[in-house]
Amino acid sequence: MSAHTATAQAHPNIAFIKYWGNRDNALRLPRNGSISMNLDGLVTRTSVSFQPSLALDEFVLNGYEMTGHALERVSATLDLVRAKAGLKMRAEVVSENNFPTGAGIASSASAFAALTLAASKAAGLDLPEAELSRLARRGSGSACRSIPGGFVEWQPGTGDEDSFAVSIAAPDHWPLVDCVAVVSAGHKSTGSTEGHALADTSPLQEARVADAPRRLEVCREAILKCDFESLAETIEHDSDLMHAVMMTSRPALFYWEPATLAVMDLVRTWRKDGLPVAYTIDAGPNVHVICPQEKADEVREKLSALQGVSRVLTAGAGGPARVEK
Amino acid sequence: MSAHTATAQAHPNIAFIKYWGNRDNALRLPRNGSISMNLDGLVTRTSVSFQPSLALDEFVLNGYEMTGHALERVSATLDLVRAKAGLKMRAEVVSENNFPTGAGIASSASAFAALTLAASKAAGLDLPEAELSRLARRGSGSACRSIPGGFVEWQPGTGDEDSFAVSIAAPDHWPLVDCVAVVSAGHKSTGSTEGHALADTSPLQEARVADAPRRLEVCREAILKCDFESLAETIEHDSDLMHAVMMTSRPALFYWEPATLAVMDLVRTWRKDGLPVAYTIDAGPNVHVICPQEKADEVREKLSALQGVSRVLTAGAGGPARVEK
Repeated sequence: MSAHTATAQAHPNIAFIKYWGNRDNALRLPRNGSISMNLDGLVTRTSVSFQPSLALDEFVLNGYEMTGHALERVSATLDLVRAKAGLKMRAEVVSENNFPTGAGIASSASAFAALTLAASKAAGLDLPEAELSRLARRGSGSACRSIPGGFVEWQPGTGDEDSFAVSIAAPDHWPLVDCVAVVSAGHKSTGSTEGHALADTSPLQEARVADAPRRLEVCREAILKCDFESLAETIEHDSDLMHAVMMTSRPALFYWEPATLAVMDLVRTWRKDGLPVAYTIDAGPNVHVICPQEKADEVREKLSALQGVSRVLTAGAGGPARVEK
Repeated sequence: MSAHTATAQAHPNIAFIKYWGNRDNALRLPRNGSISMNLDGLVTRTSVSFQPSLALDEFVLNGYEMTGHALERVSATLDLVRAKAGLKMRAEVVSENNFPTGAGIASSASAFAALTLAASKAAGLDLPEAELSRLARRGSGSACRSIPGGFVEWQPGTGDEDSFAVSIAAPDHWPLVDCVAVVSAGHKSTGSTEGHALADTSPLQEARVADAPRRLEVCREAILKCDFESLAETIEHDSDLMHAVMMTSRPALFYWEPATLAVMDLVRTWRKDGLPVAYTIDAGPNVHVICPQEKADEVREKLSALQGVSRVLTAGAGGPARVEK
């Protein structure tokens, strides 16, 4: 390996309190803070190699040479790192997800977290976690939450300098599992970068944002106290609030499929019947069903049996982004 | 027929701009104005007979003797009429809907409109429309909109005196048809009186209400100009806003079934493909698909073919509540 090469890994994360809408789209400064859990077992692995012979950046994702917008976003993150390191060389970026793209797990968070860490290391930088989180944020907002480990809070901050994520509890603090009920979408959803830009067109976004500090506090306390019932109520409410804003933006964004709604309804019923489960849904049709580790087999089995659920992935709380030795 | 007997008919109505939440629950003064269309062909027919021999009010609905809360609500409306007429006699009330209760068409609007008109007539009163509308409102908010004919706007007013509905266009002004896709609900929904009381527990209700005057104006203009595209966008947005509030109230109210969501998605797709259709959904799983009369056969056929749709009812714009001669 040359001196200008490094490889890093990062996990995707599932938001318990959601990020939706920016106060600054270019800097990806969020309208509200958010809280998430890294997803162990699901990994993006990215190698960055700065090479004097390259005329342009190159980006290979899961074996495919990427161009256009995908390459531009990668170059934008590389530019930030190059500026910081005083480096001029172009880079070859090779990235692999160990989870299928078609499974509908958002990969941009783990992708930009791994890219930021690998690129800064390859450029010879040894940045503190907060600075890595800030850089990852510029690539994809929620990527800032995939830099620290375990349960993570993204502080909205007052500007670029203080808008980054910090760990609020280690992965082993609370053995929760995310059972992802993968629902086959009938059509391609709107990407989340486009979606964020529409958030302010909903007459409900302002009210969702104004109530966010309260939800963040309840969620943070629930995590610190391992209080599942409180966590369940808060994350479902927060997910419903985000989708309420999405559905009432102009144009309206509907991410739920009929099977999504069926799983949501069942999860609420199961919880009423005593099973500790709660749903949360990102900008897609999949339902993330959160439960304590000891219930994961039962939940996975129940979800797998449902019509409209094509597969169930499971992941526990994952660690921070890390450089491969 | 004795001098203290009268029979009246009224249609249910479908709200284009929804009523959800009261600023005064006892007087049923709404948080925002609303606009609706009476539904021709669907009828509640109610006879009221004040009789000196009765010790208590009696209420027979669709052949069944009603007691408890249903009877209390009827008596409350009769009390308002008795107070106005200086009458002491109890009444026998016999009411029939020509549409099945299980079909999920809300019957409280037509029920309290017909009751108010029949009772006031039987009591010897000859009340102006606005006063009938105000009285009907006290029985069930949306019943005030089933008193005038055609396309109707309920002005929120400043108090009991000026919160009533008026016709903004006659039934024949715009030949629209409501094709009601009846979706079998898996469970009993929360009644709308209970639901209204929960509206303020949603952090989004305030914003929905604040934006209502704008939506009312767009909808009113669309009706007056027979502008289907504008009507379509506004009523879908307004329906989505109400359900956003319902889903984010505490406890959360989810009225949509998987088939509801599937029909909503298809309606948007059909409109994109050039068919003039728009959905609106009340406090239940049925999808009201609005279209111009000349498209009603096609829409009815398309809806009937869908999985999860058990039947399709159709209704054009209906006239005002009226006394039977």
